[in-house]
Amino acid sequence: MAENSKLVEMATQFVDRSPLNRWLGMSVLNADDDGIVLNIKWREDFISSPELRSTHGGILATLIDAAGDYAVAIKVGHPVPTVDMRVDYHRIAHPGDLRAEGRIINLGKSMATAEARVLDTSGRLIASGRALYLIRSPNRQ
Amino acid sequence: MAENSKLVEMATQFVDRSPLNRWLGMSVLNADDDGIVLNIKWREDFISSPELRSTHGGILATLIDAAGDYAVAIKVGHPVPTVDMRVDYHRIAHPGDLRAEGRIINLGKSMATAEARVLDTSGRLIASGRALYLIRSPNRQ
Amino acid sequence: MAENSKLVEMATQFVDRSPLNRWLGMSVLNADDDGIVLNIKWREDFISSPELRSTHGGILATLIDAAGDYAVAIKVGHPVPTVDMRVDYHRIAHPGDLRAEGRIINLGKSMATAEARVLDTSGRLIASGRALYLIRSPNRQ
Amino acid sequence: MAENSKLVEMATQFVDRSPLNRWLGMSVLNADDDGIVLNIKWREDFISSPELRSTHGGILATLIDAAGDYAVAIKVGHPVPTVDMRVDYHRIAHPGDLRAEGRIINLGKSMATAEARVLDTSGRLIASGRALYLIRSPNRQ
Repeated sequence: MAENSKLVEMATQFVDRSPLNRWLGMSVLNADDDGIVLNIKWREDFISSPELRSTHGGILATLIDAAGDYAVAIKVGHPVPTVDMRVDYHRIAHPGDLRAEGRIINLGKSMATAEARVLDTSGRLIASGRALYLIRSPNRQ
Repeated sequence: MAENSKLVEMATQFVDRSPLNRWLGMSVLNADDDGIVLNIKWREDFISSPELRSTHGGILATLIDAAGDYAVAIKVGHPVPTVDMRVDYHRIAHPGDLRAEGRIINLGKSMATAEARVLDTSGRLIASGRALYLIRSPNRQ
Repeated sequence: MAENSKLVEMATQFVDRSPLNRWLGMSVLNADDDGIVLNIKWREDFISSPELRSTHGGILATLIDAAGDYAVAIKVGHPVPTVDMRVDYHRIAHPGDLRAEGRIINLGKSMATAEARVLDTSGRLIASGRALYLIRSPNRQ
Repeated sequence: MAENSKLVEMATQFVDRSPLNRWLGMSVLNADDDGIVLNIKWREDFISSPELRSTHGGILATLIDAAGDYAVAIKVGHPVPTVDMRVDYHRIAHPGDLRAEGRIINLGKSMATAEARVLDTSGRLIASGRALYLIRSPNRQ
């Protein structure tokens, strides 16, 4: 419990530092050894198609990138540069807050792979994906 | 020439409809049979790390998604839902406008694959990727 | 139990039909509502680098594709064409049989997304990935 | 010209070392500063569905991995481990030899991104993709 609240605090510091996260209204809902849960606050700027009032895939991709990144960050002690990412879009996200769960798939010495799922407020799976992160630059040793 | 200006006009209409594109300051630099070139205007909200002043990977992913999408859209006559996407991050994007070139890899009957490259104002390759788009929903026929 | 043995039987029929699966010595270890577990038998032809005696990434990709495919196939009643795939290589696979676990991420009306993990005989995670499969062709309805 | 024949020779040495490549009947058709062209010889073992007589996606993935890898290898002087890969399947490959063209997208200090296209003997685009390769292990410096 104490552990979790420390991880939430660490993750919150990472999240709050980033101007884009602040624009997204990102907050940390949970963080523990299994991973991290993030939330972003709906804003009209997120809309892709005004007819469908659908959330833009770029917002969902940003959230997947962030959830994977901070799942790694709370293990290694700092946010990590993303090397590459895959995103799968499963259904339209209508206006509303979004939640993302990030989890590490593999933690190597120099790189980590993490996966993330984006859910709407009803708990429906909107998007999912995975990304590769650089833990330690080969040139900085 | 007339052809190109028509395609630019069509693409501009698609781009302007989307609130997220307007927030990004997106414009169409060129559109022809080979693909599309988009531009987005720098804003401080794009920043991921305030120390590095690096553009967030989610912004680059959004731009890749958009460039691939509109490369398909000007062929099929309407923007298309993204099914999935891969993004590769090649180097840090420092503050400044970004340009994205989108091009179709394969145009099938129900789906299209497109690729995109993101360049900074010096022409350096910042990111690249590819995405799959749904041209025609199997349920709408 | 009866359920599982029926799913194993169905999956085994799908697996056995394919000449490449037979060359890989593929068999179905388990199949239930949660997904499928496949096994392939080591052969010297799998080797990529003769110095490292490492299993070729193409063999691992084939196994991920298959595990995702049959996880979908036992739900929809037939093997499904792969639309695209992502594979992450986590560590070298030394000579030995390989096991792959496949699981559905999202089952849509016309497409399904599945993920898979490849493990060596010691249970170490060798590779993982996800793929998109076409359940029903939009042109065949 | 002399340059190209040297690159073809180097690539051929890399290709011939691998047991899986020999099983695939892989040969180097061309290699120059723009990339590499490989060929594999059809065999019945490649078949996925006996009804469609379609080439298994795993064979196409293997070819994309190889073409990207050797495009990097002839620049850096040795084959490189694959970190991750994306493959897009565009159409069915009927029985027949396959050709793959590999090309570098970005050559970094520790990692390289390359893309590849697989064509059938009629020149039709069967599959395409991209992969990330590790040029230099961060732990070996």
